Parts: sequence; C-alpha cells; structure tokens
Amino acid sequence: MNRGLTTEHEAESGRWLAEVCELGAMQHGETEPQAILNAVSFALGALADKIERGEATDEELALVLAD
Amino acid sequence: MNRGLTTEHEAESGRWLAEVCELGAMQHGETEPQAILNAVSFALGALADKIERGEATDEELALVLAD
Repeated sequence: MNRGLTTEHEAESGRWLAEVCELGAMQHGETEPQAILNAVSFALGALADKIERGEATDEELALVLAD
Repeated sequence: MNRGLTTEHEAESGRWLAEVCELGAMQHGETEPQAILNAVSFALGALADKIERGEATDEELALVLAD
C-alpha cells in the first residue's frame, strides 16, 4: 500500500513529517521510520473506520482490495 | 493488500465468512462483499493498533509498506 508515501525533515523542530498521500494521513515522528509508522498506523485506522461505516470510496477500497 | 483473501458460504446459516489469511482476520457477513469488507476493516484496525503499540512484525509491516 506504499502509494505516495513521502517524508520531510522539519529543520526548525528537528522532527520528521510523513504523509500517506492517497489516504490524506500526515503524522510527525522523532525519527523518519517512526513518522512513517505513525502515518501508516493512522491511515489504516482511519480507513478501517471508514469501511466499517460504509463510507470508504472505491479508490480507497482499491488500495486494500486490489490484487 | 489482497494476499490470501478467501471466502466461504456457510450452508447452514446462509452467511458468508471472509478471511484475510496473512492477518488472521475472519469475519462474517450477510453477503460475500459485506463479509469481505468486514474482514478487511477488522484486519486494518487490528494492524493499525499493532503498529501503534510497536508490535507489528516485519511481515505485517511489509504488507502495507512494500512498494
């Protein structure tokens, strides 16, 4: 599900920002790997909630259901 | 993330059972698509929780982080 995963180092705070672009999830972390894990965890949780409420779009479902 | 997604129709109850094998998520549904959505939603939520707690295995992380 690594589609458009980007990271950015914030010079001022020294933290990393990771974004799972297609799911609109952005999260900070002290390190780059931690920021990525935070963003992926957040994205998965949000998507799980959307699916449960029947609110996931076809594009979002395709991210996890596609072969 | 469709790796080993299987479904089964239960003759007795008439319900469907879907399993996301690699994440050990099994869920029922009244229809096959609903069972699949239930299982995927459950699997994503469980994986998100595991990542958040730092308990996800490398294999589980590879499911969502692999290119």
